[in-house]
Amino acid sequence: MHALSAIGRFEGLEHHFGLRVYFEDTDLTGVVYHANYLRYLERARSDMLLAVGVDQRATFESGEGAYALRNVRLEFRAPARFGEELIVISRLVSMRAAAVTIQQRVMRVQTIVATGEVEAAFVSPAGRPRRQPAQWVAAFEPLLWKGN
Amino acid sequence: MHALSAIGRFEGLEHHFGLRVYFEDTDLTGVVYHANYLRYLERARSDMLLAVGVDQRATFESGEGAYALRNVRLEFRAPARFGEELIVISRLVSMRAAAVTIQQRVMRVQTIVATGEVEAAFVSPAGRPRRQPAQWVAAFEPLLWKGN
Amino acid sequence: MHALSAIGRFEGLEHHFGLRVYFEDTDLTGVVYHANYLRYLERARSDMLLAVGVDQRATFESGEGAYALRNVRLEFRAPARFGEELIVISRLVSMRAAAVTIQQRVMRVQTIVATGEVEAAFVSPAGRPRRQPAQWVAAFEPLLWKGN
Amino acid sequence: MHALSAIGRFEGLEHHFGLRVYFEDTDLTGVVYHANYLRYLERARSDMLLAVGVDQRATFESGEGAYALRNVRLEFRAPARFGEELIVISRLVSMRAAAVTIQQRVMRVQTIVATGEVEAAFVSPAGRPRRQPAQWVAAFEPLLWKGN
Repeated sequence: MHALSAIGRFEGLEHHFGLRVYFEDTDLTGVVYHANYLRYLERARSDMLLAVGVDQRATFESGEGAYALRNVRLEFRAPARFGEELIVISRLVSMRAAAVTIQQRVMRVQTIVATGEVEAAFVSPAGRPRRQPAQWVAAFEPLLWKGN
Repeated sequence: MHALSAIGRFEGLEHHFGLRVYFEDTDLTGVVYHANYLRYLERARSDMLLAVGVDQRATFESGEGAYALRNVRLEFRAPARFGEELIVISRLVSMRAAAVTIQQRVMRVQTIVATGEVEAAFVSPAGRPRRQPAQWVAAFEPLLWKGN
Repeated sequence: MHALSAIGRFEGLEHHFGLRVYFEDTDLTGVVYHANYLRYLERARSDMLLAVGVDQRATFESGEGAYALRNVRLEFRAPARFGEELIVISRLVSMRAAAVTIQQRVMRVQTIVATGEVEAAFVSPAGRPRRQPAQWVAAFEPLLWKGN
Repeated sequence: MHALSAIGRFEGLEHHFGLRVYFEDTDLTGVVYHANYLRYLERARSDMLLAVGVDQRATFESGEGAYALRNVRLEFRAPARFGEELIVISRLVSMRAAAVTIQQRVMRVQTIVATGEVEAAFVSPAGRPRRQPAQWVAAFEPLLWKGN
């Protein structure tokens, strides 16, 4: 696979990823359907991983494994609407042998729309927890959030 | 609107809702994509509300308001795969003037696949918290989980 | 894998599959978001296949292959709304060595909401067209629609 | 609402819109789930409309109406996979009083992945066909594809 380019960018230790709300994201109440925030968060994480050189696709296709979410906590603060431009800000708050934890918040200009924290465990193709690739750990190292 | 029929059923205070995993629910790792569990949980909650006489559509269309999720906690215990039949078990653990909290678990026969707890606040069409319909409170009353 | 049960049923050569519209299916205009009809159609086809003994999961997991859509035609006749119960009626109108064509319509009581026709080709895991399993062809044979 | 910026750009009469395939877009066969192409096509159309000054949100919120799809034709030519960068190319091939028709193709570098043609009718909030806003017609005029 050729090298992919990340769409977002880092500002310090935080990764910023912009996106827009489309029809597909809304529900009849006129705001973003709650489950779709998990899709936003994952797009941002995938882009963050790409930016630090973590190639999820090659690792999965080689049969080594993939991240599977273990825990998710979401808090919804304000509704987001069709056409709005949002930004997902992600930071790595924990890294263990077989898992990482990433805190994320979805912002609309200066309003927090949603916050999330996900713990992703590295699992073998058969679904068993497994030590994540050393090169991924190395890639994440410099990103680890020291608190603010 | 004519009366709708619920698809699930109550066993005691717990509401059971069956569903199947389709192609649309999976991702390339072969298991249910994590965000789709939120869709499963919501289908089950909507059916539960219907079963106790809470008509979300009429209430929304009348301009009174709708539930908006405030907090979500998900824990993923085991992967679910294409074709599997799952059951979502839901129970009401808290009811306040303007919000309800529902605990849910997704089961595959005797394996817990995921658990979730969502807090849904009743909001006006403009998105402000609002006391929920008295008739909904009355409908929920007998369902309130007393602990186990 | 244990035997799964189909949810829908055949009435003559046509397969009937009921479903309900949930929040996840709607968009801000208050009706079912168009792409979601493709999800409804696929749920109905998967159930239809299951009912005639076509086990898509086992065939995919064995490495033999899977159906991939080639052509889709959709016509939207009437909006469907949150809470409505719909029925997807499917019939097999063509079967060739490596592909099948299924016509489907989504009904709300007596109103056609959408119609679709999809051609699904059987492809190898590498994505190449391939003769579909003989046992699938045999299972489909009796279903072939003779025109009406 | 403040002015939004389009993400894609026009090359002559054709609108180019880039996107990436995320986990949410794939299914267990490892490629993009077919219904998700309709989501891609709609993102591209929404961006195209934005670029020519058609503000769908303001028009919907004012109670004037919205586009509803009438017909969709999709042809799938090649699978797209996780991580790939795709481009959706859209052109306006027909404009009538109450509807527009847009042809689209999804490309992976030089491979066509899918083609689509959608006819979108302008409908009132009650769902009735209605003459589309004169300013939208004026915005589309210069885009009309003259054949190639």
